[in-house]
Amino acid sequence: MGSAANGAAAAAVDMATSTSNGVATVDKGVDFANYFCTYAFLYHQKEMLSDRVRMDAYFNSVFKNKHHFIGKTVLDVGTGSGILAIWSAQAGAKKVYAVEATKMAEHARELVKANNLHDVVEVIEGSIEDITLPEKVDVIISEWMGYFLLRESMFDSVICARDRWLKPTGVMYPSHARMWLAPIRSGLGDHKMSDYEGCMDDWLGFVKETKSYYGVDMSVLTKPFSEEQKKYYLQNSVWNNLHPNQVVGTATILMEIDCLTVTVEDILKVQASVSSTITKEDTRLCGFGGWFDVHFNGREENPAECEVELTTAPSIDDGTHWGQQVFLLHPPVRVNQGDEVLVNFSMSRSEENHRLMKVDLGYKLRLSSGKMLLPVINKFYIE
Amino acid sequence: MGSAANGAAAAAVDMATSTSNGVATVDKGVDFANYFCTYAFLYHQKEMLSDRVRMDAYFNSVFKNKHHFIGKTVLDVGTGSGILAIWSAQAGAKKVYAVEATKMAEHARELVKANNLHDVVEVIEGSIEDITLPEKVDVIISEWMGYFLLRESMFDSVICARDRWLKPTGVMYPSHARMWLAPIRSGLGDHKMSDYEGCMDDWLGFVKETKSYYGVDMSVLTKPFSEEQKKYYLQNSVWNNLHPNQVVGTATILMEIDCLTVTVEDILKVQASVSSTITKEDTRLCGFGGWFDVHFNGREENPAECEVELTTAPSIDDGTHWGQQVFLLHPPVRVNQGDEVLVNFSMSRSEENHRLMKVDLGYKLRLSSGKMLLPVINKFYIE
Repeated sequence: MGSAANGAAAAAVDMATSTSNGVATVDKGVDFANYFCTYAFLYHQKEMLSDRVRMDAYFNSVFKNKHHFIGKTVLDVGTGSGILAIWSAQAGAKKVYAVEATKMAEHARELVKANNLHDVVEVIEGSIEDITLPEKVDVIISEWMGYFLLRESMFDSVICARDRWLKPTGVMYPSHARMWLAPIRSGLGDHKMSDYEGCMDDWLGFVKETKSYYGVDMSVLTKPFSEEQKKYYLQNSVWNNLHPNQVVGTATILMEIDCLTVTVEDILKVQASVSSTITKEDTRLCGFGGWFDVHFNGREENPAECEVELTTAPSIDDGTHWGQQVFLLHPPVRVNQGDEVLVNFSMSRSEENHRLMKVDLGYKLRLSSGKMLLPVINKFYIE
Repeated sequence: MGSAANGAAAAAVDMATSTSNGVATVDKGVDFANYFCTYAFLYHQKEMLSDRVRMDAYFNSVFKNKHHFIGKTVLDVGTGSGILAIWSAQAGAKKVYAVEATKMAEHARELVKANNLHDVVEVIEGSIEDITLPEKVDVIISEWMGYFLLRESMFDSVICARDRWLKPTGVMYPSHARMWLAPIRSGLGDHKMSDYEGCMDDWLGFVKETKSYYGVDMSVLTKPFSEEQKKYYLQNSVWNNLHPNQVVGTATILMEIDCLTVTVEDILKVQASVSSTITKEDTRLCGFGGWFDVHFNGREENPAECEVELTTAPSIDDGTHWGQQVFLLHPPVRVNQGDEVLVNFSMSRSEENHRLMKVDLGYKLRLSSGKMLLPVINKFYIE
C-alpha cells in the first residue's frame, strides 16, 4: 500500500452525509475529520486573518456601525481565533458569546484574555447546534462564507443560531448575500485538458506494460479510469484569482439571500436561468466564473449607518482568499460582442458530503446575427 | 471561512481512534473518510501497480513458488484492483477470495472477469473483520505495508484474517518483515529549517499588522503558532528517495516480524536500542532514514522454492513508491568515520488516528576518540 492520508482527492468520496428518505443525517465524527479539523490550525486562521478585503469589510461593518453593538449582546458563530468577537466587544458590546467547534476555542480564549476582554467575551467550545446560551442576542455576527458562498454549508449553522438565539428585533452581520456568475476567458482549460490527455497517454502505456510484463489485461479499466480523471481534471471547478479583463460578458446574479429570513431549505439548491451578453470583440468563451458578495446593511427597522460590502469579484487589487470558482468549458467557443449566453444553472449538495457541491451548468449561444447554437450541458463538482 | 477540505495538515487532528482504558476503538465512518477512501481511486491503484520493485517481488514470489498455489485456496486481504488475486489464480489456485473494503471491489470484479478468472476468483466487498468465508485457506497474500512498514496499521487486518481464516498449515505472503534505520546526510533539513524560519518571520509581520490595522494584539498566539509550525516543518518525518551514498553509517534492524506468529500487541509499539557506526570521513549526520523489507520464504514445514525479497532500502535504481521516511536533526552534527551513534528508537500509534505514528528518537555520539557527546532526544510524527 503506501499513501499519504487525506489526499485532496479523498474529499470526493468521504462520508460525512448519509441521506435517508431525503433527509440528510450527518455523522459528526466524520464531519469533524473532513471539515472542522482544518480550522483547528493557526496557520489556516492566519490565512483568513491576512485577507485584507475580508478583514477590512468586517472591521468597518462593526466600527462604522457601533450603534448596533454598544450595550448589546452579540453571538459570534464559528469564532475561530475570536477576532469578530473581540471587535464586537471593542465596539462596545455588553456581552459577546463566541462559539467555536474546534480546539481553536482555547486559542480564542487566550487571545480574548490577552486583549483584556474576558469580562465581555465568553468563548464556548462546542457546535452551535448543541450549545445553550443564557439569553437571546441582539446581533449575530459570523464569517460563514465558503468558496462560491455556499461551499462548506456552514450557513446552516448560522441559520440554526438565528432561529434559536436572535431576538425578534435582532440584526445579522452580514445581512445579505449574493451569488454571481459571468462568462470568462482563461488559459486554464487548455492546461487542464493537456494534463488529462497526458494522464491518459500514461495510462495506455501502463496497460500495455502490465499486459506484457505481468500477464494481466487492464484495458477493461480504461473507461472508468478516464471517467475518474475527467472528473478530476475537467469537471472539478478551479479556484482562480481572475483579472477583470478575463470577464468577457455581463455578470448576472444567481441568488440573493436575506440572512434574516432565509431557511436551510432555500439554500439546499441554487437554481437560476440567466442571460449574459458578451462585451468583448472576437474572444473565446472558456467557461464561467462564480463569486459572491455579502452586505452589512442591518435591518429595515434598524439599518446600518454605514453600509459595507464585501465582494469577491475579480479585481485588479489583491483579491481574496476565496478567489473565484471557475467552471471550464471543453472545448471553448468563439464569441463576439453582442452574442447572448443563456445559462441554466443548478447547484446542490454532494450526496457523499453535504459540505461539497455539484453543479449542472447548461448554456446556449444566441449570436448577434440571431442564429441559435445548440445547447451544451456540463456537470461540475466544487470540492 | 473558505478552505479546501481535507488539507494534508488535517490528517494530524482527525478522529478515527478513541482510546478508552487503553483499548483503541475505531469509528468506521471516520476511518473510511480518512483512510480507505484513498484506495477507491484508480489513480492511486495505478501508482502502486506502476511500482516495478513492488510488482516484480510479488509476481516472482507467486510464479516462482507455484507449489504454494496449485490446487490451493487463497485469501487476498485488501485486493484493491485485484492483481494479487489474479496472479494467484493464474499460478494455479483452485479458489481465491479477494476481499476489498472500498468500491474498488467493483473494478476488481470487472478485471477478474475480463481476465477470465471469475470461476476461480471471488471478489468480496467488505472489511476483513466483518466478512465470513465458507472455508479456511492455504495461503494469505496481501500487500499491507505502509510507509516505514507499519504506517496505516493495515497489518492488523492481515493478522485478524490469519487468525480467523488461515489453516494451521497455511502460508503467509509475505512471510517475514523487517524495519531498518540508518544515519544519513541530506540537504532537506536546511530547507525545512529555512521554511520554518520564513514562516515565523511572516507571522511576526502579521502580528504587527494586525495590531496596527485592526487593534488586536495576536502576540499571545506566537508560541502556539511556532509549535504548530515546528511540528509541521521540523517534526514530521519526510518522504524521500535517498541515494545510497546519503547513508553515512551502518544500517540497523529495529524490528523483525514473523507474519505467521506476530500479534497486534507485538506491533503496537516498536522499541529498540541500536548502534550504528559512521562509515564516511568527515561528514554531517543530518538525521536518520527508515525503511523496510519483506520476504517471501513460505514456512519451515513448507518453504518457498525460490525465496523472494522486496526491499525499500535506498537504491541507485528507481526505488519504490514507499521511498524512505527521513527523520531530520536540527541542527545536524559533524561526524567522522568510526564514530558510533547509539540510538534509542520508540514508535507508537497516534492517539487521534491509529493509522498514523509518533516516534521518539534519542541518540548519543561516541566519537572514535572515545569522547561521549550529550544525548539528544527528538519527537517525530509519521503522518
